[in-house]
Amino acid sequence: MTLTIALDGMGGDKAPEIVVDGAARALEQLPELHFLLFGDEAKLAPLVAARPALAAALTIRHTDAFIAGDAKPSVAVRQGRTSSMRLAINAVKEKEASAAVSAGNTGALMGMGKLVLRTLPGIDRPAICGILPSRRRPIVLLDLGANIDCDATHLVQFAVMGTVFAQAILKIERPRVGLVNVGVEELKGDDIVRNTAAILRQLPPPIDFQGFVEGTDIFKGDVDVIVTDGFTGNVALKVAEGTAKMLMDELKGAFSSSMRGKLGYLVSRPALGQLRERFDPRVHNGAMFLGLGGVVVKSHGGTDGFGFGQAVLVAAELVRNGTNEHIIQAMSQLGAMLEPASEVAAS
Amino acid sequence: MTLTIALDGMGGDKAPEIVVDGAARALEQLPELHFLLFGDEAKLAPLVAARPALAAALTIRHTDAFIAGDAKPSVAVRQGRTSSMRLAINAVKEKEASAAVSAGNTGALMGMGKLVLRTLPGIDRPAICGILPSRRRPIVLLDLGANIDCDATHLVQFAVMGTVFAQAILKIERPRVGLVNVGVEELKGDDIVRNTAAILRQLPPPIDFQGFVEGTDIFKGDVDVIVTDGFTGNVALKVAEGTAKMLMDELKGAFSSSMRGKLGYLVSRPALGQLRERFDPRVHNGAMFLGLGGVVVKSHGGTDGFGFGQAVLVAAELVRNGTNEHIIQAMSQLGAMLEPASEVAAS
Repeated sequence: MTLTIALDGMGGDKAPEIVVDGAARALEQLPELHFLLFGDEAKLAPLVAARPALAAALTIRHTDAFIAGDAKPSVAVRQGRTSSMRLAINAVKEKEASAAVSAGNTGALMGMGKLVLRTLPGIDRPAICGILPSRRRPIVLLDLGANIDCDATHLVQFAVMGTVFAQAILKIERPRVGLVNVGVEELKGDDIVRNTAAILRQLPPPIDFQGFVEGTDIFKGDVDVIVTDGFTGNVALKVAEGTAKMLMDELKGAFSSSMRGKLGYLVSRPALGQLRERFDPRVHNGAMFLGLGGVVVKSHGGTDGFGFGQAVLVAAELVRNGTNEHIIQAMSQLGAMLEPASEVAAS
Repeated sequence: MTLTIALDGMGGDKAPEIVVDGAARALEQLPELHFLLFGDEAKLAPLVAARPALAAALTIRHTDAFIAGDAKPSVAVRQGRTSSMRLAINAVKEKEASAAVSAGNTGALMGMGKLVLRTLPGIDRPAICGILPSRRRPIVLLDLGANIDCDATHLVQFAVMGTVFAQAILKIERPRVGLVNVGVEELKGDDIVRNTAAILRQLPPPIDFQGFVEGTDIFKGDVDVIVTDGFTGNVALKVAEGTAKMLMDELKGAFSSSMRGKLGYLVSRPALGQLRERFDPRVHNGAMFLGLGGVVVKSHGGTDGFGFGQAVLVAAELVRNGTNEHIIQAMSQLGAMLEPASEVAAS
């Protein structure tokens, strides 16, 4: 059965090349994919024509307008009604496509997604959810920045969505959930995290709440889904990226600072290559906008064709797994549990 | 001139050995140091006696009581009136010592510090301030967890204290200050960070506010003092530690996974040693409790004698620099600037 994905052809630092290249790569993995590619036909057509297999599975929909990477999201949402990003989201709304993928402006994509697709029943606010490497297996972290201030109800919804996402994409039957805090003791943190923990502790399967996790625990892999507000999650993700990049660059510097270092590098290259592969950010490229009334995946803006292709595959997997349907179902089953718990927490 | 430092002999995972060893190491660097060492004399005396130079510069003050590393801070503060930690802080209050250093329970140390020493004039809340490596030179990060919820007034005070601290310890004449946010644009973040930025932008030298920084920017070294609330700061610090530890362990694993990797390691060892040295967490051990009415330095609980010695040297440097006097002075000079700015921000 064909699975149609709408692509924002003009979003991303290296668009449209990476979009077309990524689509071709995803198609090789999943021949049932079909694409609606939105953007400047003059630029897109030659790129597609050079890939006959892709050309046969892709329709270009021309538009002149696109959203700049540094556009102010609120302005982009208002003024970008004919942009390639907006048209890709509209295609999901109109059921022409099952999912939309863009490497463009995150804020604009989330704003348009909320405006056009609304949120799923039971979800107040969509969250941005990403996959990160850990010592054991990949973990899910949310929210990565969609919601700066969150109350307990939002964080509980993130936990439910993160659980369903980990089931769908990481194939973990009963993902363990941790809540970010400044210590693991029950009394640590502010009222919001303590109230969130109180609610999560009462929830039945599939929610498997393991308690608080600290910043150092995130990468241990003892929990599969890590829940926090968008401010903390965004900082945590970027601190991890910044630390890893600094260390890798310093390592490179250390190797190249002497002849012996250079020789050591040559001998160690296969071992270092292994490491680089495990932490390749492109493998888990694709931040999912969980909670929207349609599947929308945001690829990293600076990614290449391989990374964009991975984001397309994530989108396809979310559709095939019926992730949104599972979120609706989980929220409706938990609905009765959530209401009284919220009141207890607020009292 | 003698500079007396009060030591909590019983705080830290490997106390009392690391405390005595650290004191001896610090004394080698700074012969003018004298120590008041609080704790179990039966345990401390033999360790001190084995180091004649130290024995000549140290007085043991016996007490049976000590604060456990996992004690609940509020209970420890109430019940630990004769503990080695509390007596060390009392010695600062009584002006028997110029500073106190402990590797024990952070929450208890902060609680006792506030109770006994109060806060400096102009400071509402003390902050925990640490030094981290960056790509360029070491940077100052605060608050690391003393204050979970902060308003703009607190964050501005942190910026002032961090500036004075960077001047005193990192010898930077006019430290550049950054405020952690989820993006660098003026409109990002919540009211608190935006109001803080509005106040900081108006402050005269020595405050040199550079604007918002993201998680990825923290380790770039473009700013010297990084200000955030205690929740975010604690998570950021621990995420950086966790990421660095995971990568270093994985690197070790990669090297030892094959004969060629092992050979590569042998050849690369000097280059890797350089790297390890630059990121040695023991070098900048010693989180300063800025804003207390006396110098209190918290050594990492798991540190060794070298690390504890570094914390002692930080305490001595803070005393010799008159850091607290400089904070009082800066707050009083800025006082007039801060009041109206706060009102603007609140309106």
